Amino acid sequence: MKKIGVVTSGGDAPGMNAAIRAIVRSAVPKRCEVVGFERGYEGLVRNQARSLGLRSVSGIVQLGGTILHTVRSARFEEPDGPQEASRSLKANAAEGLIVIGGDGSLRGALELSRSSGVPVIGVPATIDNDVFGTEETVGFDTAVNTALTAIDKIRDTAVSHERVFVVEVMGRQRGFLALTVGLTAGAEIILVPEAQVDLPSVIEKLREARVKGKRSSIIVAAEGVTDCRALTAEIARKTGYDARLTTLGYVQRGGNPTARSRLLACLFGAEAVDLLLSGVENVVVGLADGRVSTTDLALSCSREKPLNLDLLRLAERLAA
Amino acid sequence: MKKIGVVTSGGDAPGMNAAIRAIVRSAVPKRCEVVGFERGYEGLVRNQARSLGLRSVSGIVQLGGTILHTVRSARFEEPDGPQEASRSLKANAAEGLIVIGGDGSLRGALELSRSSGVPVIGVPATIDNDVFGTEETVGFDTAVNTALTAIDKIRDTAVSHERVFVVEVMGRQRGFLALTVGLTAGAEIILVPEAQVDLPSVIEKLREARVKGKRSSIIVAAEGVTDCRALTAEIARKTGYDARLTTLGYVQRGGNPTARSRLLACLFGAEAVDLLLSGVENVVVGLADGRVSTTDLALSCSREKPLNLDLLRLAERLAA
Amino acid sequence: MKKIGVVTSGGDAPGMNAAIRAIVRSAVPKRCEVVGFERGYEGLVRNQARSLGLRSVSGIVQLGGTILHTVRSARFEEPDGPQEASRSLKANAAEGLIVIGGDGSLRGALELSRSSGVPVIGVPATIDNDVFGTEETVGFDTAVNTALTAIDKIRDTAVSHERVFVVEVMGRQRGFLALTVGLTAGAEIILVPEAQVDLPSVIEKLREARVKGKRSSIIVAAEGVTDCRALTAEIARKTGYDARLTTLGYVQRGGNPTARSRLLACLFGAEAVDLLLSGVENVVVGLADGRVSTTDLALSCSREKPLNLDLLRLAERLAA
Amino acid sequence: MKKIGVVTSGGDAPGMNAAIRAIVRSAVPKRCEVVGFERGYEGLVRNQARSLGLRSVSGIVQLGGTILHTVRSARFEEPDGPQEASRSLKANAAEGLIVIGGDGSLRGALELSRSSGVPVIGVPATIDNDVFGTEETVGFDTAVNTALTAIDKIRDTAVSHERVFVVEVMGRQRGFLALTVGLTAGAEIILVPEAQVDLPSVIEKLREARVKGKRSSIIVAAEGVTDCRALTAEIARKTGYDARLTTLGYVQRGGNPTARSRLLACLFGAEAVDLLLSGVENVVVGLADGRVSTTDLALSCSREKPLNLDLLRLAERLAA
Repeated sequence: MKKIGVVTSGGDAPGMNAAIRAIVRSAVPKRCEVVGFERGYEGLVRNQARSLGLRSVSGIVQLGGTILHTVRSARFEEPDGPQEASRSLKANAAEGLIVIGGDGSLRGALELSRSSGVPVIGVPATIDNDVFGTEETVGFDTAVNTALTAIDKIRDTAVSHERVFVVEVMGRQRGFLALTVGLTAGAEIILVPEAQVDLPSVIEKLREARVKGKRSSIIVAAEGVTDCRALTAEIARKTGYDARLTTLGYVQRGGNPTARSRLLACLFGAEAVDLLLSGVENVVVGLADGRVSTTDLALSCSREKPLNLDLLRLAERLAA
Repeated sequence: MKKIGVVTSGGDAPGMNAAIRAIVRSAVPKRCEVVGFERGYEGLVRNQARSLGLRSVSGIVQLGGTILHTVRSARFEEPDGPQEASRSLKANAAEGLIVIGGDGSLRGALELSRSSGVPVIGVPATIDNDVFGTEETVGFDTAVNTALTAIDKIRDTAVSHERVFVVEVMGRQRGFLALTVGLTAGAEIILVPEAQVDLPSVIEKLREARVKGKRSSIIVAAEGVTDCRALTAEIARKTGYDARLTTLGYVQRGGNPTARSRLLACLFGAEAVDLLLSGVENVVVGLADGRVSTTDLALSCSREKPLNLDLLRLAERLAA
Repeated sequence: MKKIGVVTSGGDAPGMNAAIRAIVRSAVPKRCEVVGFERGYEGLVRNQARSLGLRSVSGIVQLGGTILHTVRSARFEEPDGPQEASRSLKANAAEGLIVIGGDGSLRGALELSRSSGVPVIGVPATIDNDVFGTEETVGFDTAVNTALTAIDKIRDTAVSHERVFVVEVMGRQRGFLALTVGLTAGAEIILVPEAQVDLPSVIEKLREARVKGKRSSIIVAAEGVTDCRALTAEIARKTGYDARLTTLGYVQRGGNPTARSRLLACLFGAEAVDLLLSGVENVVVGLADGRVSTTDLALSCSREKPLNLDLLRLAERLAA
Repeated sequence: MKKIGVVTSGGDAPGMNAAIRAIVRSAVPKRCEVVGFERGYEGLVRNQARSLGLRSVSGIVQLGGTILHTVRSARFEEPDGPQEASRSLKANAAEGLIVIGGDGSLRGALELSRSSGVPVIGVPATIDNDVFGTEETVGFDTAVNTALTAIDKIRDTAVSHERVFVVEVMGRQRGFLALTVGLTAGAEIILVPEAQVDLPSVIEKLREARVKGKRSSIIVAAEGVTDCRALTAEIARKTGYDARLTTLGYVQRGGNPTARSRLLACLFGAEAVDLLLSGVENVVVGLADGRVSTTDLALSCSREKPLNLDLLRLAERLAA
């Protein structure tokens, strides 16, 4: 393989740049050029490409976001989108493609591979951690720590004001982020879509916490679980406690990647290149049993990654 | 004076603990005991007090929140609230009181002083920076840096996704926080209540920014300036740009205080004790012309601190 | 088992408090009391103990250091030290002991178990990550990120001044910390005791880096690998480059634990209690294949954990 | 004035980039071009220059270091150095020059102005804060907070291990950094060159601290005050306490600038341009009485900025 393409797609995740760097630095010394497509699949359909040499990825390992940018591409979603993208791959003589992104992006990669015949490797990168085939995605650990640091700050106010705080974290329809953040923040209650809890139970737990001597409580809720504004209002109304909501929002997507997000980016990026160059195609790189591994791309796209509910029970036990 | 009281009131601000420490460590070696009233004015009306010795304030200089807690006190707001509070002061033999808090708390301090005859000194501590008589309040610098760090992260996503981001910061009806954050974050647009801007101007500026080559923009808005959700929707509708909102929320109130917030807390707390012990009463400690100074408490409560709009013009100039 | 003891020993590691909390919150609801021995093995030989109830571990999950303290104990090292410690265990009716610490502490735990007959469980917690039987220790991820953040800052100066920076990180005689930090920091050269490199090779690599267009370089060195002061001087002398040394030092041991350090602390602490209560004894809890597991304590104490040198080669490849 | 030059010189300081941005964004809209000289005075003597347009300073307000680089220039120190530099100024048609740097750089600026006749404005930027004519330099607040955060972490270990920690901070022959850091960190002892303390007094204070119940102590020492390694050894020898040294080193020079460092950079940079364009020459911009002001360059270079020893006494009082 003389040339491969790389694209970042979907929501940005800290460590995407470290992955780009790992790909370029792995491929180029093996006499395989790298062409970067800009702005996600939009750059593929519109053929916005630039050559990525060894020095072009200097000083980016620690940067959040993605130097290749990523925007939503309505054109790629159109019936002939993948074909347009295929033409760009061919126009640039890219014999393989590495897609860095979340589950939606990987589905796009699968389509693209089918329409173009070009081998594709997925590098899972999303703060939601919801890609089947890997225990952890690039960017997840960073988002967890960003949310955790924010909650450590909010706790100061919660304790000082003897309040109940509902903290809404990202994760779309999944609870990976909320669960890890809630457990490590020592949250009294964690609400995830995978284990629905009704309001009376929440109220009951909050009352028990007060009885046990806790004058403040933190509830960590995944954005997909409920209307947190309404939840907070209900809690205040039913308990009489001073209850407040904070929605952490986009701050969770940015920032310098943590060591772990960079480490996964390095491992996954380098592996993706090795796989492409050795003829493997249409797999997602990932972590299984703590080691770098691969999963069939079509399989990854068709399965839902399970949430470890043992961790939820552990969190409840430790919030005693 | 043999004994003084100290209370933290209103919204918590990083550095309140450093101020408590400075007060205790300044008073006790001068043979003046310190009694801490807990939970703001609520602890004064309910006589929830505890003695604060030299070792009781060890290891707190770096903690956010307040070890004395602060809750809203409906009882203090009642007609006989200040009298109840006066009784607690006398019951504890407190011959003076230091109130650490924002402008609402200082107004309470003025009332309390009038009803009890006990000399009161105010230590301005609020992330809103809206106390007349001081160039800066304890906690403001910390909140500015917390918001700034968050925006630095959001910028990663804004740039990567070529988006317009509206970031709502705290400050209630005032723009101190938004202005300093916006200027130092390099925000393209800053919206503060003191200098209303209409939507067409915002739209116009965003378009100009694109023309100049900026593919993403940050708008920092004070919470008191407009409905940011509606603003963001309008921007998206009128420009077609991908526009998103993040409300930073309570994370801005907590966290370890910055050096500057601690420095002001040390200076103001020590000065408050010196003033009380030398017979001064009913003033607010503050920073004027970069130096520790005092302002009459009644005057501080009756005036509105002006916002330096030159900084707003500078910010616009530098976002060119 | 009605009562268990817990002790933190050896160098402190971020997450020790989260582990103490996990132990107390796991044991007490199962009607098993917890007694904490203070100041490491010193508190065991001197019987400095205090009861740890559910509320005594509130608000500590995010704190660095250890609320139980840890000092070097000359007395425990004496021939009758373990016997003295055994007496304390019995005096406190502790039927089992959980030791939170590094490899030295675990060796002490083994001795103690042998001399007292009391079952012991080890929770590996050290920033050095050098405990056989676990892929990762509590505190390691925090130290890695602290060092990484520091190097990100140093890089600003390295680039601006076009310098070679030698950054010495902790790890005693092992290179776990240096390797992970160096890889994720994008260091040009990583020096670990497990893969000795001679000075001429270092010089050669630095020269190659300049030829490739790098005007600054970062060398991450484990403290155990060489005299870094001499190394820095030699580099400056032989290359003529402006070379500087920074020794990160004790800052790496403290700070709020990262999510991952807290997660391991929660998992290991809870598991340690479950093991003791179910009759298992003399094992070290750990992470194997990404899952919580156990290793025989005597085995853990007699083996040396291998360093993954593939990561070193990857780091070199990516620094191309 | 149609064109001005800008150069960063001496040790890098966080906020230098924000100052460059402020200068470019202030000058260009007033139809005054900006040429940046690279690598400090070295770039002036060697005529390494590049044009700085509005977009060339995008996205740098938050970056540490300096995009213009800064290296030591032996050639500028030679007798004909300033003349060479003057030639570059003329070759680039620069009618004025803004020098961003510390006191050594400002002395160079004065020489350059004398030899070239080109008006020069100094923007004080150094983490040492030792420029006469300004209450604070660009970068100082950032370095203070970086050191403070490090000491907050070290305190975890100091408390857990019941140790005495000597923390050496930067500042060359001056104590500005040590004093502000020590006061705000709640250090038990602060050692600055401006107020020499003998070893017996240090020992005495440490013993008093133990008597008062403090089991750990932090000593913050300016690098210029003594040999900290020897000091630490002496403390250990004379008191028998476990004493350790950490030298914070170059981490203090880098990192994203704090809000305050950016604010000063914005204010000073904009003012420097306004001054040059209005015909003022050979002054240093600064902060006096909390406001932007100017000081004659020759005066600034000939005077030593005094350290406020009242703060030292306050720190001692508060460490009671």
